[in-house]
Amino acid sequence: MSDIAASVEWIAVDWGTTNLRAWAMAGARVLEAAAKPLGMGALKRNEFEPALLGTIGAWLADGRTVPVVACGMVGARQGWVEAPYVQAPSLPLDARRFTEVATDDRRIAVTIVHGMSQIDPPDVMRGEETQLAGFLALEPGFSGTACLPGTHSKWATLGRDRIAGFRTFMTGELFALLRDQSILRHSVGDETEADDGAFAEAVTEGGAAPGALAAWLFSTRAQGLLGTLRPAEALGRISGLLIGMEVCAMRAAWIERPLVLIGAPALCDRYSRALTLLGARPPAVIDAERCTLAGLAAAHRFLAV
Amino acid sequence: MSDIAASVEWIAVDWGTTNLRAWAMAGARVLEAAAKPLGMGALKRNEFEPALLGTIGAWLADGRTVPVVACGMVGARQGWVEAPYVQAPSLPLDARRFTEVATDDRRIAVTIVHGMSQIDPPDVMRGEETQLAGFLALEPGFSGTACLPGTHSKWATLGRDRIAGFRTFMTGELFALLRDQSILRHSVGDETEADDGAFAEAVTEGGAAPGALAAWLFSTRAQGLLGTLRPAEALGRISGLLIGMEVCAMRAAWIERPLVLIGAPALCDRYSRALTLLGARPPAVIDAERCTLAGLAAAHRFLAV
Repeated sequence: MSDIAASVEWIAVDWGTTNLRAWAMAGARVLEAAAKPLGMGALKRNEFEPALLGTIGAWLADGRTVPVVACGMVGARQGWVEAPYVQAPSLPLDARRFTEVATDDRRIAVTIVHGMSQIDPPDVMRGEETQLAGFLALEPGFSGTACLPGTHSKWATLGRDRIAGFRTFMTGELFALLRDQSILRHSVGDETEADDGAFAEAVTEGGAAPGALAAWLFSTRAQGLLGTLRPAEALGRISGLLIGMEVCAMRAAWIERPLVLIGAPALCDRYSRALTLLGARPPAVIDAERCTLAGLAAAHRFLAV
Repeated sequence: MSDIAASVEWIAVDWGTTNLRAWAMAGARVLEAAAKPLGMGALKRNEFEPALLGTIGAWLADGRTVPVVACGMVGARQGWVEAPYVQAPSLPLDARRFTEVATDDRRIAVTIVHGMSQIDPPDVMRGEETQLAGFLALEPGFSGTACLPGTHSKWATLGRDRIAGFRTFMTGELFALLRDQSILRHSVGDETEADDGAFAEAVTEGGAAPGALAAWLFSTRAQGLLGTLRPAEALGRISGLLIGMEVCAMRAAWIERPLVLIGAPALCDRYSRALTLLGARPPAVIDAERCTLAGLAAAHRFLAV
């Protein structure tokens, strides 16, 4: 038996569309981490258990059943087992709506956390409810807005330990489509570093005249054609226009209210710059993985009750 | 010699990214039309002349040279021969900036019409300057706005027979990307008919809160997931949001000003509905092909001078 297998108490799993990430846990302490590019999007239903065992197998031992708590797109309709949505407003976690998964391997007892839905405006999340639960466990009593930038950015209104409501912006997906698939790909080329000045200028434009997005974007292409825009500037403009629009549209959620950004440092930095350019105080930033782990630990504590 | 070859005086060519369309002309009268899916995007430089001859060959006869006047992306940098941009504000056509193409076949004398550019905001067009020239030939003295809906919609301010300025919205390209490549493709499926009611509602939303585009789009996906939105409604919403944003952003160009739509009937009908929903008077609609032909005829008359 490996050292980890001897001391692991439970296993935390963040299983998204693209990646599977797992942590061997003792209470709230991480013993070891593992990750594979085996997201929900790449797996058929009967491939989830082998993918999980291939990732966490070294932490398991015969004759012992370890609880595995998973959140994210693994619980979507196209995932391993469909987990229900809890409807906002709600506490972020509701153990009555967790879903147990029957596995062939008796060494694991898998539980998938529910997603969260909202009727008006219609919205859904899977995984972020767990991050928000983790954030509220780390910052109990927080009242304000949490923004989780990403492919599908979430803005959640938090208070009294509950998610009062939320809104999703597919800003990251739009950015990737425009950069990789649209006519703007010719202006961006292989560039990966966005120009700061172009980003800042575009944040202001996107915020001030969001309806003209499709025109600002084409204008970026035209400027590239006319030879007066570098690829890094084109990239900065696309990013700035989209993030500026989003941040401006959510102004009521951050003006004169506490705001926290939960996400990857580089992306949080961009949102933070956009926010301050548009008049917000510099927001607090908290690492997404820390929140995910705290949320999965909270979910695990519910199971132990 | 075919009947056409005996009577053709010149050949009009609209050569875009996707299609090559040609007309055998006697003065302003069409003798015959031909089209092939041999757009600029599919051709290498040495393939343009064979593609053209394969389309118009039946109209040619030995011992005679017929003028061919072409507009559109055929004059782009990746086209047959790069034609310059004329800078707006300007008359739509400037014969001094037409580009002659050297051909191997002596039966044709090919001229490519210039494009049009603008410095602030940066913008370009290729082909629409010819359609606008044609429109102004059909409606001399028109003062107002012409909107040419399409993959890259153009809004041009016209007066004193000139193009005072223009703005391009990549609305059609965004629509296609969202429908075919984004997560929304799951909500649309194979549906091709947009629901009228969903379109109308989304036009109003897109116009009223354009900054929330990325959120309205995701909300459409969420409504699909929650089972309360049909594919035709999803398609109507995406179209309505984008067109509503565009039309609203161009309000200053149509409110209390004459507006004409130049384009394909189905798309013009959508723009017309969006315009009237947002408070415009029903705009005049004129067929794009009629304008293209009138514009190419105007270009041909310049050559004959």
